[in-house]
Amino acid sequence: MPNQNIIAKYLLETPQSVERAAEVIAGEQSSGTFLPVPGETEELKARSRARVTNISHLETVDFPALPGSRAAKGHTGAIQYHRAEITIEFPISNVGPNLPTLMATVCGNLFELSEVSGLKLLDIEIPPVFAERYPGPQFGVLGTRKLTGVQERPIIGTIVKPSVGLSPEQTGQLVRELAEAGIDFVKDDELMADPPHSPLKERVAAVMGEINRLADKTGKKVMYAVNISDDIDAMLRHHDTVVQAGGTCVMVSLNHVGLAAVSHLRRHCKIPIHGHRNGWGLFARHPLLGVEFAAYQKIWRLAGVDHLHVNGLQNKFWEPDASVIRSIKALQEPLFGGYHSMPVISSGQTGGQAPETFRLTGTTDVMYVAGGGIMAHPGGPAAGLRGIQQAWEAAVKGIALSDYAKDHPELQQTLEKFGGIRG
Amino acid sequence: MPNQNIIAKYLLETPQSVERAAEVIAGEQSSGTFLPVPGETEELKARSRARVTNISHLETVDFPALPGSRAAKGHTGAIQYHRAEITIEFPISNVGPNLPTLMATVCGNLFELSEVSGLKLLDIEIPPVFAERYPGPQFGVLGTRKLTGVQERPIIGTIVKPSVGLSPEQTGQLVRELAEAGIDFVKDDELMADPPHSPLKERVAAVMGEINRLADKTGKKVMYAVNISDDIDAMLRHHDTVVQAGGTCVMVSLNHVGLAAVSHLRRHCKIPIHGHRNGWGLFARHPLLGVEFAAYQKIWRLAGVDHLHVNGLQNKFWEPDASVIRSIKALQEPLFGGYHSMPVISSGQTGGQAPETFRLTGTTDVMYVAGGGIMAHPGGPAAGLRGIQQAWEAAVKGIALSDYAKDHPELQQTLEKFGGIRG
Repeated sequence: MPNQNIIAKYLLETPQSVERAAEVIAGEQSSGTFLPVPGETEELKARSRARVTNISHLETVDFPALPGSRAAKGHTGAIQYHRAEITIEFPISNVGPNLPTLMATVCGNLFELSEVSGLKLLDIEIPPVFAERYPGPQFGVLGTRKLTGVQERPIIGTIVKPSVGLSPEQTGQLVRELAEAGIDFVKDDELMADPPHSPLKERVAAVMGEINRLADKTGKKVMYAVNISDDIDAMLRHHDTVVQAGGTCVMVSLNHVGLAAVSHLRRHCKIPIHGHRNGWGLFARHPLLGVEFAAYQKIWRLAGVDHLHVNGLQNKFWEPDASVIRSIKALQEPLFGGYHSMPVISSGQTGGQAPETFRLTGTTDVMYVAGGGIMAHPGGPAAGLRGIQQAWEAAVKGIALSDYAKDHPELQQTLEKFGGIRG
Repeated sequence: MPNQNIIAKYLLETPQSVERAAEVIAGEQSSGTFLPVPGETEELKARSRARVTNISHLETVDFPALPGSRAAKGHTGAIQYHRAEITIEFPISNVGPNLPTLMATVCGNLFELSEVSGLKLLDIEIPPVFAERYPGPQFGVLGTRKLTGVQERPIIGTIVKPSVGLSPEQTGQLVRELAEAGIDFVKDDELMADPPHSPLKERVAAVMGEINRLADKTGKKVMYAVNISDDIDAMLRHHDTVVQAGGTCVMVSLNHVGLAAVSHLRRHCKIPIHGHRNGWGLFARHPLLGVEFAAYQKIWRLAGVDHLHVNGLQNKFWEPDASVIRSIKALQEPLFGGYHSMPVISSGQTGGQAPETFRLTGTTDVMYVAGGGIMAHPGGPAAGLRGIQQAWEAAVKGIALSDYAKDHPELQQTLEKFGGIRG
């Protein structure tokens, strides 16, 4: 029988004993207060209080990861900071299947406790009662493959660049070039939703005009992720605009529209939701503050996101390759037996990273999004795109890129232009 | 003429030159990409590119605040990390008056750049075009005073404790006791919205039954902030339940329902929105990662929050007093000539902190929320409440608490029970 409670695993650092700090977290995030009050009976406590179910001690260090912690009362002498992985089980009856309140429980005031000098939510187990309320991704991997007509290889895409500044007509022209080159997927930049210089309605008309025209001719319809991030009514209106124009994807800045907005969009949405995680650095970049992707991605899959960004190997950002691979693997794990959202690999991708990405994840069920890697290819966008497709063919066949490039000139150019990325 | 663009000020740390890192941020968050692409003309760049308008150099350090940064290409020898305050101006035409996209711009991918080893958004100037779209707090300070009938002193409140576990009937009984004691304001805990053990509808019926009964008798209606954090449709339904029962406040976990949900609620709301910032530690606790309250509070005031939590002096959390005072002062500053949200002072408050809070802020336009400080008072909740009122009277009159306590026995008990908090 699956677990019926909420289980959260944290990396903790504390100037007090790990056992005490863990109990403080469990208390603060369930029935506790700072002084005993009337009404807090033993029976109520037994039913409602979160329980510390595991502690695995790690290293002790001399300096705190975060400021503002306090040693136990009466402590004298130098303070040391003890690290541990701890597991806390929260009664589901405290919360019910309510995503924002789940987050308030596992990801709320606890980061502010003076008993902790570091706290990161590593992972979370969510009971099946949530699946009854939240239907999850409506399209996911299979639906996205069906809409794009791409099978047995990654869905290859690009981003409209420059990020901002292009008029709807310029964007339409760019998309036509990319579509003619054979691209599967194009996305708006997250900096661009419905700005004065490119109103969403006009941009959608220009872009979908080009996409539909070409689809009528070739049978292949490019998926264009329109950034509809906005207030609720505007998002739903934008969604309808996209659907009416024949569009097949909407994009949202998850962290900035927020959880309730995304769940709401999911219930009205007729096309896949492309989840952009910009702002993710706030959760991820410090090793002892925030939320690991393992936990984060479960929340957004429940909310109904069909595609979720994971960065890419050898990206232009700070994120180490091992973390990117963990993220892709986390999305491959079934949630409630399914809820498959498609990992979106992006940032500094040229195709050169394909072999390593495939070797470490064993999957082509990804979106592979390249900006300059396609647009700045010496042979133009069509050649850039072919280069990336060839890189993935080589990766799946287990052939070294340098060998495969011998009779694949676009890949050869990719390798020459973008340098000796391993593979 | 007020500024028409978006101006963001950051604390930056970088292993490269400050000038270069600032330019990378400006480029990444406006027209930039990692390679020049067709369509990125000089004219477009001039119109769309964010500009670095100020750099104030600070200290240089030997160790990075955050992992994953990279020195400039070709750098040899030991890396040093340069800190500075930088100001970046983003063209409003890139964004338009769209709060989630404003956040994606000033608070998006930039935290992930390998050119930065630390980045905190310190403050933000938002152009008036946002005020045309976002009406801001509907009630604010004046409306909350009118609904509670409290003038010229803080609105004194408490939190339902235990946080979770009480039945609707038990909650109703607790609220009756508090209401009879003369409390102005009571709030649900953020861990409790619509759980199985206390369905919102039943809790509202039980609580408002008591509040309305007493209001009919005394003319004083306690403001009860019902935690409606949930999905959009549920939040609106819960709001209607509260209004129909005669309730005068709803509460939301801002970070977990998200920005679009709160703006949406504001447009439908008939009573004040009590903004709980749980999860705020993620933004605030690291000195070189995240967002300062000065910036954060402007976003939520625009979204329409009437009350916003600020922690309290000598709180049980990690936050230093100076930071709490800065937060209260930030909320006192007009935004677009108004948009006044009421600071909610809470966490470990007993009344003892009143003189220092008043001395440093000069205002009684605050909500002052105490848990144990009221409930665990030796004379019971009514005496605890009187003790806090007396502490604020003394604070405003400039009389030392110990002197004022001589002929105010409840305050005397407060000081004895909760110890020598300064004042």
